[in-house]
Amino acid sequence: MAQKLWEKNVQVDQEVDTFTVGKDREMDLYLAKYDVLGSMAHITMLESIGLLTREELTVLLAELKNIYAVADSGRFVIEEGVEDVHSQVELMLTRRLGDTGKKIHSGRSRNDQVLLDLKLFTRAQIQEIVELVSGLFEVLISQSNRYKEVLLPGYTHLQIAMPSSFGLWFGAYAESLADDLQLMQAAYKVCNRNPLGSAAGYGSSFPLKRQMTTDLLGFDSLDYNVVYAQMGRGKMERTVAFAMAGIAATLSKLAFDACMFNSQNFGFIKLPDQFTTGSSIMPHKKNPDVFELTRAKCNKLQGLPQQITLISNNLPSGYFRDLQIIKEVFLPAFDELKDCLRMVTHMMREVKVNEHILDDDKYALLFSVEEVNRLVLEGVPFRDAYKQVGLNIEAGKFTPVKEVSHTHEGSIGNLCNDQISALMQNIVDGFAFNRVNEAERQLLSE
Amino acid sequence: MAQKLWEKNVQVDQEVDTFTVGKDREMDLYLAKYDVLGSMAHITMLESIGLLTREELTVLLAELKNIYAVADSGRFVIEEGVEDVHSQVELMLTRRLGDTGKKIHSGRSRNDQVLLDLKLFTRAQIQEIVELVSGLFEVLISQSNRYKEVLLPGYTHLQIAMPSSFGLWFGAYAESLADDLQLMQAAYKVCNRNPLGSAAGYGSSFPLKRQMTTDLLGFDSLDYNVVYAQMGRGKMERTVAFAMAGIAATLSKLAFDACMFNSQNFGFIKLPDQFTTGSSIMPHKKNPDVFELTRAKCNKLQGLPQQITLISNNLPSGYFRDLQIIKEVFLPAFDELKDCLRMVTHMMREVKVNEHILDDDKYALLFSVEEVNRLVLEGVPFRDAYKQVGLNIEAGKFTPVKEVSHTHEGSIGNLCNDQISALMQNIVDGFAFNRVNEAERQLLSE
Amino acid sequence: MAQKLWEKNVQVDQEVDTFTVGKDREMDLYLAKYDVLGSMAHITMLESIGLLTREELTVLLAELKNIYAVADSGRFVIEEGVEDVHSQVELMLTRRLGDTGKKIHSGRSRNDQVLLDLKLFTRAQIQEIVELVSGLFEVLISQSNRYKEVLLPGYTHLQIAMPSSFGLWFGAYAESLADDLQLMQAAYKVCNRNPLGSAAGYGSSFPLKRQMTTDLLGFDSLDYNVVYAQMGRGKMERTVAFAMAGIAATLSKLAFDACMFNSQNFGFIKLPDQFTTGSSIMPHKKNPDVFELTRAKCNKLQGLPQQITLISNNLPSGYFRDLQIIKEVFLPAFDELKDCLRMVTHMMREVKVNEHILDDDKYALLFSVEEVNRLVLEGVPFRDAYKQVGLNIEAGKFTPVKEVSHTHEGSIGNLCNDQISALMQNIVDGFAFNRVNEAERQLLSE
Amino acid sequence: MAQKLWEKNVQVDQEVDTFTVGKDREMDLYLAKYDVLGSMAHITMLESIGLLTREELTVLLAELKNIYAVADSGRFVIEEGVEDVHSQVELMLTRRLGDTGKKIHSGRSRNDQVLLDLKLFTRAQIQEIVELVSGLFEVLISQSNRYKEVLLPGYTHLQIAMPSSFGLWFGAYAESLADDLQLMQAAYKVCNRNPLGSAAGYGSSFPLKRQMTTDLLGFDSLDYNVVYAQMGRGKMERTVAFAMAGIAATLSKLAFDACMFNSQNFGFIKLPDQFTTGSSIMPHKKNPDVFELTRAKCNKLQGLPQQITLISNNLPSGYFRDLQIIKEVFLPAFDELKDCLRMVTHMMREVKVNEHILDDDKYALLFSVEEVNRLVLEGVPFRDAYKQVGLNIEAGKFTPVKEVSHTHEGSIGNLCNDQISALMQNIVDGFAFNRVNEAERQLLSE
Repeated sequence: MAQKLWEKNVQVDQEVDTFTVGKDREMDLYLAKYDVLGSMAHITMLESIGLLTREELTVLLAELKNIYAVADSGRFVIEEGVEDVHSQVELMLTRRLGDTGKKIHSGRSRNDQVLLDLKLFTRAQIQEIVELVSGLFEVLISQSNRYKEVLLPGYTHLQIAMPSSFGLWFGAYAESLADDLQLMQAAYKVCNRNPLGSAAGYGSSFPLKRQMTTDLLGFDSLDYNVVYAQMGRGKMERTVAFAMAGIAATLSKLAFDACMFNSQNFGFIKLPDQFTTGSSIMPHKKNPDVFELTRAKCNKLQGLPQQITLISNNLPSGYFRDLQIIKEVFLPAFDELKDCLRMVTHMMREVKVNEHILDDDKYALLFSVEEVNRLVLEGVPFRDAYKQVGLNIEAGKFTPVKEVSHTHEGSIGNLCNDQISALMQNIVDGFAFNRVNEAERQLLSE
Repeated sequence: MAQKLWEKNVQVDQEVDTFTVGKDREMDLYLAKYDVLGSMAHITMLESIGLLTREELTVLLAELKNIYAVADSGRFVIEEGVEDVHSQVELMLTRRLGDTGKKIHSGRSRNDQVLLDLKLFTRAQIQEIVELVSGLFEVLISQSNRYKEVLLPGYTHLQIAMPSSFGLWFGAYAESLADDLQLMQAAYKVCNRNPLGSAAGYGSSFPLKRQMTTDLLGFDSLDYNVVYAQMGRGKMERTVAFAMAGIAATLSKLAFDACMFNSQNFGFIKLPDQFTTGSSIMPHKKNPDVFELTRAKCNKLQGLPQQITLISNNLPSGYFRDLQIIKEVFLPAFDELKDCLRMVTHMMREVKVNEHILDDDKYALLFSVEEVNRLVLEGVPFRDAYKQVGLNIEAGKFTPVKEVSHTHEGSIGNLCNDQISALMQNIVDGFAFNRVNEAERQLLSE
Repeated sequence: MAQKLWEKNVQVDQEVDTFTVGKDREMDLYLAKYDVLGSMAHITMLESIGLLTREELTVLLAELKNIYAVADSGRFVIEEGVEDVHSQVELMLTRRLGDTGKKIHSGRSRNDQVLLDLKLFTRAQIQEIVELVSGLFEVLISQSNRYKEVLLPGYTHLQIAMPSSFGLWFGAYAESLADDLQLMQAAYKVCNRNPLGSAAGYGSSFPLKRQMTTDLLGFDSLDYNVVYAQMGRGKMERTVAFAMAGIAATLSKLAFDACMFNSQNFGFIKLPDQFTTGSSIMPHKKNPDVFELTRAKCNKLQGLPQQITLISNNLPSGYFRDLQIIKEVFLPAFDELKDCLRMVTHMMREVKVNEHILDDDKYALLFSVEEVNRLVLEGVPFRDAYKQVGLNIEAGKFTPVKEVSHTHEGSIGNLCNDQISALMQNIVDGFAFNRVNEAERQLLSE
Repeated sequence: MAQKLWEKNVQVDQEVDTFTVGKDREMDLYLAKYDVLGSMAHITMLESIGLLTREELTVLLAELKNIYAVADSGRFVIEEGVEDVHSQVELMLTRRLGDTGKKIHSGRSRNDQVLLDLKLFTRAQIQEIVELVSGLFEVLISQSNRYKEVLLPGYTHLQIAMPSSFGLWFGAYAESLADDLQLMQAAYKVCNRNPLGSAAGYGSSFPLKRQMTTDLLGFDSLDYNVVYAQMGRGKMERTVAFAMAGIAATLSKLAFDACMFNSQNFGFIKLPDQFTTGSSIMPHKKNPDVFELTRAKCNKLQGLPQQITLISNNLPSGYFRDLQIIKEVFLPAFDELKDCLRMVTHMMREVKVNEHILDDDKYALLFSVEEVNRLVLEGVPFRDAYKQVGLNIEAGKFTPVKEVSHTHEGSIGNLCNDQISALMQNIVDGFAFNRVNEAERQLLSE
């Protein structure tokens, strides 16, 4: 059993210990790198207010850099009997530096330390997600341009409605991702504020310089009010989960379309054989499992905000151990979303489209609105044109002209992909990841 | 039964009709004003491309302005037998202007018309919410400043932990609202893009000028891709619902604190008697129902994103009638949130705080960390100081000095309310409501 | 403003009053009949313990029967200025009977009175739902028998898989409803226990005879422990909501199938024209809105348990005003579910099935497993047969024998509809509604 | 990479393979034992219809029993490169028995095999949960009886209301568990029906005897209709998740009470020191983490039905790979719930109650209703008694008699714990686990 920082004369009941530690040690591995980074900023500040000597700072920073390198390369482990990442780092330091190693905890509580770790981890994950979304966006825009001439039935109510195109279809999902990143950017701004120095949620009697750690770590600002800083636990995660759910919803819808378009009843797209799976009893099957799993994983991700809400809701202000459980659902979710993004990008690059869909007679009625509009442009009032074409169809006398001349912004003939790309670029620039990356680089190179 | 735009030779089954119309007529009243506004922009554009004459435009605009005034004053009704707001407006126009009235529908579908109405309605609601949030923010900051000297026990695990203050407590919720508006601003940006011209979701063969209606209505940009514009239905609502849930979560937590602090077991705050309710069997009761109802209503609101997700999820792209049902849960939610905001503002202004809480001996242990830190500042290593104070407490030998000297940013002695206010102001400015208000004013005054 | 039972010297703030009353008056109309019924049982018991005279009981019962008749015919109103249904009933009694009217409240709190009303209302609603489900079940079984010879492609992964039939399709949804009622029966048992006598949640010093009201109202048993009786608020609703969500899930899936099968890309079923709706711009459309709306309404209903959970979760034991808000989401949900059940029953009765689906060549591969199995029954090892047929298909050399001879239980040739009907009947019998109906009849006829 | 049953000439893309296998191998370990059991029943049936010889059956059964023993002792592994549990079992058989090993798959699809495994696994888990719930129930009833004389303030609105007792408090949660098992029993009945023989969801041309495997495995009945059997995937899990959420809600509320009662502001209960945890900066802390974590884990579990709904909703009938993802959230949930049940049982056994709570003067008002009722029993009309006591309280003239004489069923003086225990026993008996256990024992001993 782990020796706890706070244990005094009484040993904790073994069953209670197992239950309370739970998945903490597993979860804390996600945070190791960021815990070290946060400690580096914290002790640099401690030295500036006289709570560490210059020499202590120097040896501690050097050793923390070593531990960071270990964590960065994936070799960090929390040893048997050690409670969490914070204790493990402290243990590694004291093995090398003796009592000096213990000093990194001054002026902090585990509460603000975890808050900080979570925020540093999350902003790095958001950066990776934004990059993957941008990559998928590029593929979608490129496919939209490539297949802009290929027509597709457009449906409303899953009934054949009007002509659409693969240019529109690919492009629509690209534009959807832009709006999704808008929400993610707000979540990033909520995340990228510094909770360090809030201690257990009520501040500290040490003369901490919170603006200094804010600058060292590249945060946009402090979480000023220390009670609010603590209140951010759960709230930050929920906010980011909203934004993740937004992206997941877009991927899920794309996957739904893909599954349906891939059915023999549609036959609009096809995945190369090596991307499909078979059946153990039906020898003809080529199933689009990859899209089904993307859909399911993304639908699961859409439940994340509700999970976090259920765990954190109806608790008064102040820290509760409940918040620890949020880590179990929140931390692994990033890998799940990133996997889906990578897979959808891969699929969208390889998918083959059927260039002859509208040859099939069952799609003739797609052109009925075109006919109505043609009559209107010839001067027939809309309601009359509508009625006339409708009656022709009922009577079986409708013969379509299979041509589409849509020219307005965002239509088949004028996709506005350049404007959509400019919109996306603008949003991506707004994250200003460079500033954060530069701060971290600086801190690690000191 | 209503005469439907699309009815041809067959009468709809009566039961089916009742079921499909559902709450549409009730819901559409929320949208009337915005439907008229959208039509004004649309026909101005139609004239510019020759689908209306100058004279037709003039009389239609004049009549629409009259209808707008009716809707603005709350007197708009959807008559018995009329299906929805769009049909009602067209009916009012044709009564006065004959067939000219029908021409406002050219180049549109009900799909993009509803999309537009929803976005115009929603952005107006967001503006009201931002104003109410700002009002509550001011009250909280003002109470934080007023009671900054009054101490309060700070809890972790609902166990007495460290000293807090009403300055921190009120201020924390103010800062929380700032982050909430960050998310709302992203939702606003997703909302404030123009779907008009996307027709049934696949564009139109009319040479529409979508940028023109975008400018006339003060939108930030087009929803470019017409398939994406339609995909925004459900997505916009869900995104805004995320942001509403964020505000609701803050109010709910505040209400939870207030209910608890108002209990005789805490006695930290008190509502004036006229704000409490009694019991039918217990003559001594003064219940804080107003906070309980705020909490419950806000918790209900936190379920809104999930409701929208359940309705809209796992549908392929393209319009489905399912999306209509989102209106039933989305449109009334704004009034619910605004009511809660008004009520909490009212309560936070009137609440009385207990200025002598810490006189009670049970709160003595709050000062144990202060004692540990005092020893540390005298040179005792933290772990030793911690152990020494802990053993003193166990032995009943701990006597606190009930003084707090926290000076760092965001702590009891240095609330940073000015910085929090500046942060808030900056976010509110980012909405740029003026631009939208000016465009609407312009359109109505032409 | 309403005069409150509990108002003493202080007038409640007007805004607070409006906010706290909320939708109570509207919601309480659902409960009126049951409130009267509960009072009849309660006062009969009060007389038995000497808290009412025989004469008082007689006049009160007579008057309550009148009010019940008013409520039963839908003419009950809560007058302006009256807070809730309980106050309205008391007001009606005192107008006729003077102070005697006030005596019906002895030995109760509004807490156990509302608990009772909710349970009596809910069990009546459950009875209606079970009847509607049974009706739909009959239609489905009857259509299953009628169309048992009509084949349909069976899909896995939305890929053509193996032959199915309309016999299987209709029958599957019938059997699903049986399992759904299993869950509903458990919810009914949780509901059908008597909370009356728990007062504000801590019992009463009056010598109440709780078993007597339990018998009078036909409950299965008491909610014994009074603290638990109060804890049932929110829990009963959530439990019933789970069961409603189960039925809603079945209807939603059926509606999804129907929407898809009705698309031109499938063409498996068709609704008569008078059950479809058109489009304002596409003259050829015949949209299955009725199924889309069923799906959406049922998906909304599937969010109900989560709404109730969000409102009631993380509250300690004991009454909170929060629980009042559950009424807003719970009470109207029954009408929504019943509407959907009625509409689906109507549609399932009228739907036309395409009897020639498998004539289309694209469905030939459906028969590949049949071919594999034929080889296996001839002695070829399964893996070899599978490989051989698979290679034939790849090489374009597969020609199917379009015959299905499935004979085992539950397969195309042996639907087991009689067993499914017997299962259903057994579950319906388990509700024992007769007992409850008889008790209510008895109470009203005394 | 694993050799897939269905691979023909094309190798699956490596990235796609990793993505689609996902956590299947990890999840399938939960199912190993049940997969073997199902195969034993299946091949016994196959022999009876001539698809296996008597000799083949004998050697296969013997080998499967060995594998069952391996799985039962926790030593079953899915080897590198093997896709899932079904392939691993087949591999183990063919290593020992050659081609005979492959024959266990005849007349099945992986679809009905997984369905069967899930149901056998789930019903075993339900049995464990019912046993743990019964154990907790016993402890609660025993504590209720033990502390029935110890009074406690009863709260409404978290305001001091009326006297309660630890007898009521412990007993209430016991009774709550009985209702929870009612729901679980319905879920068990939905689960305990046999899907085997439904193959890929459309049955089989083999003359399977489905009633025979139903009997061999101790199921209550068949899932008759094969399309419905497949439709049960996701539905069974969601139904069981509802019932798990019900138990979780009870535990969460109990944990909430315990956290609150353990706060210094209440001081009603106390955990032995070895069951509490400390703080890294506050030396006086004894935190009830065990209750907070129970609450959080149970709140997380309450999100499970919604997760399953999100994954499985809005899919048409027929198998989709999406359903695989449900395993990731469903299978591990049982361990989480069982851990919480064990921990709460442990805590409820050890918790110490404060026997002198009501000595504190702040609880005097608890007795105001007693005073009102005393006056009523002396003949004062209720409304007048209520007003008189209320005015006395306002004037500071109320002095309580701290005595409680509640005698009715379920009240402080008459807890009805025997009736509650009888109710519970009756529900537990209704599961009839013996029948299932006997069938499994039989099958394994043949």
